[in-house]
Amino acid sequence: MSIDDPNSYSLGSFFLALASIFIVGKIVSSLFVKYKQPEVLGELIAGVLLGILGLIPLYGELGYDFFHLLSEVGVAILLFEIGLETDLDDLINVGLPSLIVGIIGVVAPFGLGYFTVYTLADLNFVSFGSETAQFLTALTIGATLTATSVGITARVLSELGKLKSTEAKVVLGAAVIDDVLGLIILAVISGIISTSSISGTSDISISSTEILIISAKAFGFLILAILLGNLFTKKLFIFIYNLKARGSLLLGALAYTFIFAYLAQFAGLAPIIGAFAAGLLLAKTNQKDLIEDRLKPVADVFIPIFFIMVGSAVDITAFNPFIKENIAVIILALVLFVVAIIGKVISGIGAYKLNVNKLVIGIGMIPRGEVGLIFASMGLVSGVLTKSEYSALTIMVMLTTFIAPPLLYKFFRDK
Amino acid sequence: MSIDDPNSYSLGSFFLALASIFIVGKIVSSLFVKYKQPEVLGELIAGVLLGILGLIPLYGELGYDFFHLLSEVGVAILLFEIGLETDLDDLINVGLPSLIVGIIGVVAPFGLGYFTVYTLADLNFVSFGSETAQFLTALTIGATLTATSVGITARVLSELGKLKSTEAKVVLGAAVIDDVLGLIILAVISGIISTSSISGTSDISISSTEILIISAKAFGFLILAILLGNLFTKKLFIFIYNLKARGSLLLGALAYTFIFAYLAQFAGLAPIIGAFAAGLLLAKTNQKDLIEDRLKPVADVFIPIFFIMVGSAVDITAFNPFIKENIAVIILALVLFVVAIIGKVISGIGAYKLNVNKLVIGIGMIPRGEVGLIFASMGLVSGVLTKSEYSALTIMVMLTTFIAPPLLYKFFRDK
Repeated sequence: MSIDDPNSYSLGSFFLALASIFIVGKIVSSLFVKYKQPEVLGELIAGVLLGILGLIPLYGELGYDFFHLLSEVGVAILLFEIGLETDLDDLINVGLPSLIVGIIGVVAPFGLGYFTVYTLADLNFVSFGSETAQFLTALTIGATLTATSVGITARVLSELGKLKSTEAKVVLGAAVIDDVLGLIILAVISGIISTSSISGTSDISISSTEILIISAKAFGFLILAILLGNLFTKKLFIFIYNLKARGSLLLGALAYTFIFAYLAQFAGLAPIIGAFAAGLLLAKTNQKDLIEDRLKPVADVFIPIFFIMVGSAVDITAFNPFIKENIAVIILALVLFVVAIIGKVISGIGAYKLNVNKLVIGIGMIPRGEVGLIFASMGLVSGVLTKSEYSALTIMVMLTTFIAPPLLYKFFRDK
Repeated sequence: MSIDDPNSYSLGSFFLALASIFIVGKIVSSLFVKYKQPEVLGELIAGVLLGILGLIPLYGELGYDFFHLLSEVGVAILLFEIGLETDLDDLINVGLPSLIVGIIGVVAPFGLGYFTVYTLADLNFVSFGSETAQFLTALTIGATLTATSVGITARVLSELGKLKSTEAKVVLGAAVIDDVLGLIILAVISGIISTSSISGTSDISISSTEILIISAKAFGFLILAILLGNLFTKKLFIFIYNLKARGSLLLGALAYTFIFAYLAQFAGLAPIIGAFAAGLLLAKTNQKDLIEDRLKPVADVFIPIFFIMVGSAVDITAFNPFIKENIAVIILALVLFVVAIIGKVISGIGAYKLNVNKLVIGIGMIPRGEVGLIFASMGLVSGVLTKSEYSALTIMVMLTTFIAPPLLYKFFRDK
């Protein structure tokens, strides 16, 4: 007998859920690979299936269930792996184009989303009680449209063997910029919403000093992490490499990644930005190839869990056009989806000085992650968004996630 | 920005906890390896340290926190790995000695524990209100002493490169027998306690039919799993090997393991017995070496978490002799510890027909896992055990876990 009560139910069902994720994930994605489609799209769809079948149980009451935490480990390992294959100097070389792409990719969707709301109101498609309500809705929908989720694109670029391309570097750099800008927008919007909802006015309550502090903290983290990391990382990994215990190098690399993820969050950034920085730093160590080699099977286990969990969050019933209430939601979702694509695709022109496929860069910026959903749920909870608007935004986020992989395959795969 | 609210606290602290486990685990165990001591003992002690420092936070409210579930995955992978390196035919060849070792290893500690309680009562070291209370305490303490936790021994045998030895096979076989017997004892004792506690009598309420059913289910699972598994596993893994998606073979092997773990629990056995059976079956496939190779880094990540979690469960304050109440508990614990060692070490004579190191087999049976603690906590909750008796049993379990690795190193390491 072993560590647990053999009669307990949840341990067995937990093993079964994990097995289901692996089996359904690999079968569906193998079919996609067979027909030369994005493997990651197969995992997303496997997630949708598992969600419909109810095969992913939820654990925990703290807002993070077990599989959600596993998926966070997965996306951190993904970005670490991407960082490991990226040359920091190359990334700095495309710094300016990345900055421009990142800024356009935030400003354009925000502006387009904002004016879409006003246009729809003028067309009497939606109506708002007051000008303030309309302003707040426009702000929230605009903000939801801004945040790129780089995980999907990074994975597809990896599948296509294009991680060393200039396009990949511009997108990865722009994703970092996007994250910092997203952080600032989050602070500003939540400041506006929290005062406006109470006072009914649209005064901006957050001070420019606060915005400066948030920005300085985020950029400061990135610069400090890279500079300090450069000082001691090589020596640290010579030490770790010489440790005698089984798996020291792999666990050392993972611990390093997780600490950077922690520090990134401490600076207000997404943990995966820290994981990406950790990969960039370890790319310069002598142990890089060994780490990459030993990380691969671990990545194979954890990364699919992330994409499957993203897929499993899709509420398929929201797409049912036979339910009358869904139709307006679907139309609004499709309008926002078109806006979401245009807003990001035009960001590709930011790389105007480079001899690259600008369309690919724009497409790479399309996927929105659950950060978009955070904006949306903030809007829902504060009463700024109606349930329909919230559902439409959810559908828009999902569609951007599903459209990017096939588009990248179409426009960036070698013939 | 990524999948989660970058301002949430728990995600960052979760990454930090995971990093702490890896860092402290590898530093302490590397020191042990350096001085030619058991690596696993280093991980147990790292767990004690992490527990004292409070660096392992608990998640979830369902009785299984996140790290506990990770550790379950770890011990399942460990037993799968051990199964993969074990030849089923060899195991069947040592079937009879294993059976005898397993039976002695259950009967001897149970009898010794039972009579220790009566002896201590005669010496007025402990006193019980009634004869029934004394009988129930003796039963519960005896039962707690029976269940071997094979994870520790398996890991040490692996470290010593002795998994192919006959001693290893006898211990592994005996652990399976032990698990089945433990299951039967658990059913019997909980039947006795649940009626006796209410009626105040010591009638045995569980029928022999029920015991037969439980035994048949457990043995039936093992035999069916091996027979049916033999029929389709080779073909299944040729199919899985030909799947195109990244990591299909590794994830297929893990899913197979987890399904067997689920089925074992469904049959009333510990999940790790199923994982072990899965390893035995995959050992006969053509993909065995590939699976072993790709599993290694994943095992390096998960397995230490199990041993660290076992270590972190140690309540160090129970060992403080300066707290007066602890002294009687410590004496009782030490008496039970001696009984626990003798009871298992003599089980080695069960392999009397083989030309093996019988002391090593006996030592290999010493470690008690948390199943012992399940018996103990059942006793505590039902009021059969006092808090002191419960604490003494907890200490006894911990000591058996910590004593086995150095003893195996001493008596089984090649000079």
